[in-house]
Amino acid sequence: MPHRRTVYFVSDGTGITSQMLGHSLLTQFEDVEFNQVTLPFVDSVDKAGECLERIERESLRGNGQPIVFSTLVDPQARAVLRRANALFLDFFETFIGPLEAGLGTKSNHTVGRSHSARDKNTYEQRMGAVNFAMVHDDGASHRDLEQADVILTGVSRSGKTPTSLYLALQFGVKAANYPLIPEDFTRMQLPEALRRCKSRVYGLSIAPERLREIRQERRPDSRYADLDNCRYEVAQAEILMRREGIRWINSTTKSIEELATTILRELSLERQMY
Amino acid sequence: MPHRRTVYFVSDGTGITSQMLGHSLLTQFEDVEFNQVTLPFVDSVDKAGECLERIERESLRGNGQPIVFSTLVDPQARAVLRRANALFLDFFETFIGPLEAGLGTKSNHTVGRSHSARDKNTYEQRMGAVNFAMVHDDGASHRDLEQADVILTGVSRSGKTPTSLYLALQFGVKAANYPLIPEDFTRMQLPEALRRCKSRVYGLSIAPERLREIRQERRPDSRYADLDNCRYEVAQAEILMRREGIRWINSTTKSIEELATTILRELSLERQMY
Repeated sequence: MPHRRTVYFVSDGTGITSQMLGHSLLTQFEDVEFNQVTLPFVDSVDKAGECLERIERESLRGNGQPIVFSTLVDPQARAVLRRANALFLDFFETFIGPLEAGLGTKSNHTVGRSHSARDKNTYEQRMGAVNFAMVHDDGASHRDLEQADVILTGVSRSGKTPTSLYLALQFGVKAANYPLIPEDFTRMQLPEALRRCKSRVYGLSIAPERLREIRQERRPDSRYADLDNCRYEVAQAEILMRREGIRWINSTTKSIEELATTILRELSLERQMY
Repeated sequence: MPHRRTVYFVSDGTGITSQMLGHSLLTQFEDVEFNQVTLPFVDSVDKAGECLERIERESLRGNGQPIVFSTLVDPQARAVLRRANALFLDFFETFIGPLEAGLGTKSNHTVGRSHSARDKNTYEQRMGAVNFAMVHDDGASHRDLEQADVILTGVSRSGKTPTSLYLALQFGVKAANYPLIPEDFTRMQLPEALRRCKSRVYGLSIAPERLREIRQERRPDSRYADLDNCRYEVAQAEILMRREGIRWINSTTKSIEELATTILRELSLERQMY
């Protein structure tokens, strides 16, 4: 019988920080199956009480002690939850004390500050980046392309669109993307629009076999998805990028988080976190 | 003189978990200005040594003791970093012990599992969701609309696109979005394509004054951006949604994280975290 546990992510805000850290810790326990429950917006002692009841009911079910990851800022709400018969791991309680001591100042104990739209300027800048990524997806517009922090390029389906969107949404970076097409290989130079912004162009390459898989799903048995054609396009794109002095990364086994992190580092772009 | 500190987010992977939790803790200290530095892909003792040197140089600059948020899985790399003259807060060290005790099993101590593309099926499902959101942005396609987990609706610029993209990228949820336009108000019913999927339609409304601001940036001094027109569209959209029994949320002061969290909860959709 596989080991199974219920895990609660409790937060006074969206629960995204709690769930992300909890998730990254749980990936370290492969032989346990986790039933994950998010309890967001727990911003009062009453709501903490409702969570407590829910966790207590689960703990009586005989599925082993529940695990609670919490990012509750309010000590009173935390005290309520702590009464649960559960393994209680609170990020604020654990780290705020050492931080207050190290910084020699008191924390605000303000609920739900993370992932809110409170800082209007920062939030609007981020939404502006999302809008920019949408307008400049797949070379759709050359307008204001010089305002891009990064312009991703590569053959169709090499991962440009999701990576651009991630750069914009998670890091507030203005990311455009521009495809390399057979005409570019004939001329063996970057599309004109990119030549002016070369220092911010970054390439994505991909294994031809993987490219074939992705294209095959999109347009089955087309020339577009043909393995020989994929091999040709990838090889030409790499020759072109090498010739133009464009840095690139192979996206085949990388996640968009890994691609975005690498690109920002190599272009020395600062990353905001929201 | 404002209190200023340098903060390092050190990770064997992308550093996103470390930066997100660190950021949410730092928002609790409003009177300190933080200089934030991400050090990703620190997956060897040698690389930890390079980080140590960098942090030591900063600590000698007299800007106060640096702060290090770390999510290093490897105890040896951690031991290197711990030698720095810094306030060292490690998430793994802090929580893996209690988790091992509570679960009665050992952790894998596997580096860089979070935010990788290791679980290919899950990752492809997520990229499928991003693709779905792009194809179904702004009512662009009715094809496979019945496969949507959620269809956001509302007037132009009420926040549908960034919220759909966030739902797809962060939670792997298939989110379409479909605008409400003046013709829909004349007929006073949902667009035909949405009537068939009504249980998964969710509305976004917005304060007319805020809508005017956003539209004014896009098309200055147009009828589209006119305050009376914004008032009219928002009022009509709310009447229509009420009549059709569509739930909605006011997006004016909400972040996309808050909108996404609320929508998933109200539609009882499970959320994955990547």
